Formats: sequence, C-alpha cells, structure tokens
Amino acid sequence: MANDSFTALAHPVRRAIVERLAHGSATVGAATADFGLAKPTISRHLRVLEEAGVVRRRVVGRQHQLDLDVEALEVPYGWLGRQRDVWDRMFDAVEDHLNARGVAGD
Amino acid sequence: MANDSFTALAHPVRRAIVERLAHGSATVGAATADFGLAKPTISRHLRVLEEAGVVRRRVVGRQHQLDLDVEALEVPYGWLGRQRDVWDRMFDAVEDHLNARGVAGD
Repeated sequence: MANDSFTALAHPVRRAIVERLAHGSATVGAATADFGLAKPTISRHLRVLEEAGVVRRRVVGRQHQLDLDVEALEVPYGWLGRQRDVWDRMFDAVEDHLNARGVAGD
Repeated sequence: MANDSFTALAHPVRRAIVERLAHGSATVGAATADFGLAKPTISRHLRVLEEAGVVRRRVVGRQHQLDLDVEALEVPYGWLGRQRDVWDRMFDAVEDHLNARGVAGD
C-alpha cells in the first residue's frame, strides 16, 4: 500500500520539493534551484517522487514542468489517521474498563 | 523534522508492527510472531522504529514489551495535512482568479 509514498517522503529534499509544488506547478529548475545539489542528485530524488506518483512531470516545449499529485498524499495521510483512531479507541476502552472496576476512584 | 518518522514507516513490516501496537502494548514475540522473519531482521526493523521514537521498549522481567508512541505519528500526519491545506488554498485562489476573469463563463 502506502510503501512508495512513505519512501518518497523519507528524505528532506523530497519533502522540500513537495512543499514547493503544494504552492503550484513549477519547472524543475524553479522547484530545485536553491538546494545547491548536483543535477544527477536532483534527478534521482525526482524519479523517486514520480515513481511513487507524488509528482508528475509534463514536458512543455523545452521546459519540464512539475506538478504535485495531492491525491497521492491521501494514502499515507489516511493510514496515519487510522492508526491514531485505532489507538484512541483502544485507549478509551482501557479507561472505560478501569472506570467500571472503580480503579480511577481508588 | 519528520525525516525519521517517514523513514520508520517506509517499510511494510514496520507499518504492520505499528498497526498491531495501535491495538495495545505487546511483547516483541506477540507483535512479530507471524511475519516469518528471522530475529535479526525483526531486531533491525524494531531498532528503526525505536530510533524514530515511534515505538518504545520496556523490559518487564524477561519480556521485552513494545508500546506505540502515538505522538510520534503526529509529526508526519501534521506535515501531510499542511501540504494538503496549502494545495487547497492555492487551488481555491486559482479558481477565484479564473472566475474573476470570467473564464469559467466562457
């Protein structure tokens, strides 16, 4: 399931690219200009993001335009939310159980 | 920031461990029994989760007890939510701009 999305986001440079693209479409140059990274390094990070479906690339004339696919963030976001919900319900059930036994009042 | 949490969750075995611990504390054996993985492999995955603060280990007698630290999931969850919010606002602003220019009515 969300393996690729979590892997794609498991690097600060890739998260920084996502943060920029959340503000709108950008060329590869504009999205990555001030990281001070070599082009092959940038290309490798972009490939990971593209393979995970988090970023899409359009070739517009001589420009490579990058877009965030915000839907791809829903998978890890949903997974994290579900773990929190399960944990909250478990926690409530334990508390109810302790209350029913009068432990809280001891 | 959330680097460690995303890295910790970037493997299906580690996510499966988190899913179990969301249901409550468990021993290492109970949390990982039916993965069919060698002990060193399990230990390596647990170390990544512990180093990221996602899982805590308590030694209770001869048992190693694992607990989810659900707070550690808030960092990646919050980051993902913020990217979505930024994107939604950007999208709304573009739409408002197009509506103001009457593009939608063309």
